[in-house]
Amino acid sequence: MPKAQSGFKKLSREINLSVIGQYVDYLVEKQGVKNIFVNGTTGEGLSLSISERRRVAEEWVTKGRNKLDQVVIHVGALSLKESQELAKHAAEIGADGIAVIAPFFLKPQDKDDLIAFLKEVAAAAPALPFYYYHIPALTGVKIRAEELLDGIQEKIPTFQGLKFSDTDLLDFGQCVDQNRQRQFAFLFGVDEQLLSALVMGATGAVGSTYNYLGQKTNQMLEAYERKDLSSALNYQFCIQRFINFVVKLGFGVSQTKAIMTLVSGIPMGPPRLPLQRASKEFIDNAEAKLKSLGFLSLTDLKNGNLETSS
Amino acid sequence: MPKAQSGFKKLSREINLSVIGQYVDYLVEKQGVKNIFVNGTTGEGLSLSISERRRVAEEWVTKGRNKLDQVVIHVGALSLKESQELAKHAAEIGADGIAVIAPFFLKPQDKDDLIAFLKEVAAAAPALPFYYYHIPALTGVKIRAEELLDGIQEKIPTFQGLKFSDTDLLDFGQCVDQNRQRQFAFLFGVDEQLLSALVMGATGAVGSTYNYLGQKTNQMLEAYERKDLSSALNYQFCIQRFINFVVKLGFGVSQTKAIMTLVSGIPMGPPRLPLQRASKEFIDNAEAKLKSLGFLSLTDLKNGNLETSS
Amino acid sequence: MPKAQSGFKKLSREINLSVIGQYVDYLVEKQGVKNIFVNGTTGEGLSLSISERRRVAEEWVTKGRNKLDQVVIHVGALSLKESQELAKHAAEIGADGIAVIAPFFLKPQDKDDLIAFLKEVAAAAPALPFYYYHIPALTGVKIRAEELLDGIQEKIPTFQGLKFSDTDLLDFGQCVDQNRQRQFAFLFGVDEQLLSALVMGATGAVGSTYNYLGQKTNQMLEAYERKDLSSALNYQFCIQRFINFVVKLGFGVSQTKAIMTLVSGIPMGPPRLPLQRASKEFIDNAEAKLKSLGFLSLTDLKNGNLETSS
Amino acid sequence: MPKAQSGFKKLSREINLSVIGQYVDYLVEKQGVKNIFVNGTTGEGLSLSISERRRVAEEWVTKGRNKLDQVVIHVGALSLKESQELAKHAAEIGADGIAVIAPFFLKPQDKDDLIAFLKEVAAAAPALPFYYYHIPALTGVKIRAEELLDGIQEKIPTFQGLKFSDTDLLDFGQCVDQNRQRQFAFLFGVDEQLLSALVMGATGAVGSTYNYLGQKTNQMLEAYERKDLSSALNYQFCIQRFINFVVKLGFGVSQTKAIMTLVSGIPMGPPRLPLQRASKEFIDNAEAKLKSLGFLSLTDLKNGNLETSS
Repeated sequence: MPKAQSGFKKLSREINLSVIGQYVDYLVEKQGVKNIFVNGTTGEGLSLSISERRRVAEEWVTKGRNKLDQVVIHVGALSLKESQELAKHAAEIGADGIAVIAPFFLKPQDKDDLIAFLKEVAAAAPALPFYYYHIPALTGVKIRAEELLDGIQEKIPTFQGLKFSDTDLLDFGQCVDQNRQRQFAFLFGVDEQLLSALVMGATGAVGSTYNYLGQKTNQMLEAYERKDLSSALNYQFCIQRFINFVVKLGFGVSQTKAIMTLVSGIPMGPPRLPLQRASKEFIDNAEAKLKSLGFLSLTDLKNGNLETSS
Repeated sequence: MPKAQSGFKKLSREINLSVIGQYVDYLVEKQGVKNIFVNGTTGEGLSLSISERRRVAEEWVTKGRNKLDQVVIHVGALSLKESQELAKHAAEIGADGIAVIAPFFLKPQDKDDLIAFLKEVAAAAPALPFYYYHIPALTGVKIRAEELLDGIQEKIPTFQGLKFSDTDLLDFGQCVDQNRQRQFAFLFGVDEQLLSALVMGATGAVGSTYNYLGQKTNQMLEAYERKDLSSALNYQFCIQRFINFVVKLGFGVSQTKAIMTLVSGIPMGPPRLPLQRASKEFIDNAEAKLKSLGFLSLTDLKNGNLETSS
Repeated sequence: MPKAQSGFKKLSREINLSVIGQYVDYLVEKQGVKNIFVNGTTGEGLSLSISERRRVAEEWVTKGRNKLDQVVIHVGALSLKESQELAKHAAEIGADGIAVIAPFFLKPQDKDDLIAFLKEVAAAAPALPFYYYHIPALTGVKIRAEELLDGIQEKIPTFQGLKFSDTDLLDFGQCVDQNRQRQFAFLFGVDEQLLSALVMGATGAVGSTYNYLGQKTNQMLEAYERKDLSSALNYQFCIQRFINFVVKLGFGVSQTKAIMTLVSGIPMGPPRLPLQRASKEFIDNAEAKLKSLGFLSLTDLKNGNLETSS
Repeated sequence: MPKAQSGFKKLSREINLSVIGQYVDYLVEKQGVKNIFVNGTTGEGLSLSISERRRVAEEWVTKGRNKLDQVVIHVGALSLKESQELAKHAAEIGADGIAVIAPFFLKPQDKDDLIAFLKEVAAAAPALPFYYYHIPALTGVKIRAEELLDGIQEKIPTFQGLKFSDTDLLDFGQCVDQNRQRQFAFLFGVDEQLLSALVMGATGAVGSTYNYLGQKTNQMLEAYERKDLSSALNYQFCIQRFINFVVKLGFGVSQTKAIMTLVSGIPMGPPRLPLQRASKEFIDNAEAKLKSLGFLSLTDLKNGNLETSS
């Protein structure tokens, strides 16, 4: 069940907590997304101060109550101490889980270094499910997830799964294969090739596009579940056409926020520096493409199992 | 229909043409592989002199007659002139197609440069189907295949498909999506995640492991075709377990040859410098793993549609 | 005048402020280093919480008073808000300058993005000299320093120079060449090739090895100033022999701290996770090498103009 | 004594041997370059067929007789056999040395693999001085030159030096430092930072810019030899300004040829595919810059010791 990564809301580059409640309703009702990954890449979590991260997390947990299935808080930070503080806070506010990215300035040299770091964070929230957020292209930490998972529950009893944002499906497949008897979540994070990960055993997905393509992705998931591979591929191709188009224009967190605003009608605000607002030209092009692909006239939504990251 | 990439046969680092006939029989009878990709990466084509490449190609075409479905000759070279000579030769000896890698020392800067080069090679064999061999991790040429294919038949009328050796399944998927009405072959080249490419529209596969895992891969293909995704995934995981194991030991063309010798019983000979023979330790470990996975007791083969590269 | 980068002091992975005063004396008296770069890479600044960074900065400023020439505080952070807070704090405690690394998770896409970010930080400490810390191999931000410096004083009036930690001496040379009439500091940060940067116009150096090779480096600087290039090269080679040796053993911040402890006799403590303590084997090997090169018997120091980073 | 790398001469993308004699005179008389590195990167050696490489080498040796000091032939190739053939040929025609790049498709995994390959090439020309051409950014072969040189004469008795085209001056410095008692040539190949390598012990230089900036570079060398570091730096900066300018326009072998034509007046012809002719816009911009820097009015040349690569 995929989760969407939504951008946190800001006006004039300050966080704008007031739109979060509205956005919860939008995700549930319009995109069929009921699981949220807060303060991740799309949510610019690492660009926020610790106190801002706490406030954003609180707002999502509060506004999501009785509406969302799961609110997972990303608590990764370069500083172990800050990561522990955020983990403890997530437990206090009643989040459903925490996720941690590998520290990426001074990097763990091997699996043992990384486990040692993650373990200390997990221990600060000993009752919360723990997810590892694997995104080697952004962190430069190339430790294979399959190796990390080998014996991880002995070190981190709360380990519950991983968000795998990479195209190495040997590594991903072996995570699934070697842990079949455990109840881990194998959440895939490269939206444009989710179908390829489903066939390799993915149990869900977390990604930024589910903020605006959640409905379409849920349709793909349903087709896949009824073994209608041809329809599933058509949905995947449709999603790819949009992503392929915007990638060529220059696609990042700023552009994602602009598209989220376009599709949801809820103002996402600008990103924080060093990111700059998406250009008017990008927005116009993206809007035209969304229209031509039929992505701007959403109706007849069914609730699904995507998770968005905000 | 996947093709296997077999190593050319050499004794004392000279090419050993005499085993090729025997190897053809082995591939067809034991691995169910009837399509061959000659003088590619596994075959160390670029480590051979031009005259050696010609002789190897001739031997495969001759010995494969009436036994193999297709013999495609890789004619890529850093020198356009040499590539053209090899293309012409492939046509003369009756090969079924030619494939070309992007030149990778002085690199094409964009799609137009690359098309200009490929076009000149294709024109030297105007009656032969032409395949582009996309392997950006080895060549450093990152031009997206999907862009390359846009309008390619106007420039290269013999264009027939591509060997896609990369994990970017957005690029691969868009190759398929945008060319559905054409009869291109979309051959996937990352063996350990073939299943993920099948669901994205792959029409076949070319890879080195089909020399020794062809049978197992054919079983996966059959399961996939009858929509038994669970069985297909089990076959894929089984293949992954082996590849994952040898990758950790250090896995390259030398090691592939050693495994081919182990499984086929046909002496592949050592690689040519700068490659060195696989170590005794590697071979012992690989053999033990092959046995534990049941890959060394091949019986009851069915012919399939893999293509091997030699 | 090079600055050394010293590790901050910790026992049981908590910061150990009590040794900083002692370390100031050591640097001045034994290494001839009177300029300090605090909370940088070697000092694990990004692994500390904001409140820890403040306390470390305060201690260096306090203990360095009347002993050190300059204490520059690294205030870079992924979060602009936190970076601004640290800049303001540095001004309040009377630091001599601030330095900022490029944000490296969500990255600036071009010079304008980066300048916009740096400008906001500099503006939080409008009376303090501002240094840009250029270290593309660690940040992945490849924006050329020479382009960044073009017109920078119009955007950042307090801009005073850069720490250039890269081997691209075309970029470095053009920084110097195009800003000759300005009084910028061009501080080189690749210790093992400092001599090559001196001849290209470097005005100083900041690096981790000056914590323990400051004396030797000062001797090189003196030889260079008197145009005794042969002696200067001998000193550089001597330094290189040590660095070349430890690089092969695996050399990073943890290992730097161990060497600093060896040479200074002051306990640097372990690094913070995800870094692990240097191994006993590393320390033994490094010690033997230091002895064989004569680096463990420091006497007859002259004060110089190196800057260390802590 | 630097060598220049000149482009081979072609009309309609066929090699044009007829201009080589004229170009020899130009290099000697106008640029003060008397050492030539033939069939290297600039000369597109790897884009030529083996027979073309032989003919180009012969022409340079023949036309350079009694005019040039040294003609070194690059004989590196992906195929060991072809490299050996070219080495043997170089000996037969009376070349002064051979140089070999690391094979870069199937790559040597460590020093031993690389030495084994180089040794076989060197043995094919047992009376010719042998040079290793180290250019890791192009080959992807990261084996450190310093390690390669350790004990190399026991394996390759004809080893005479290396062309070092990288910015890692720790590696370069240690090559010099550890082999001081041997008579090796340490030729630096990053023209824009030659001064930095001179101070680190470079004994010469080989590079493409010496085809048109040989005179300016010789002036830098002379200033350096008389310890006039300030003048040497001025010359280096002047050269950097040009290179910095063209790098921003997109600078490669094609553009180098266009500039060589501009400055020498001798038609270099177009490059061979996959390279495309430099654009008119590039040529106009480069010409304007050459003029503004005073590089198009060469007079009063002194002979120097640069080596050009063609």
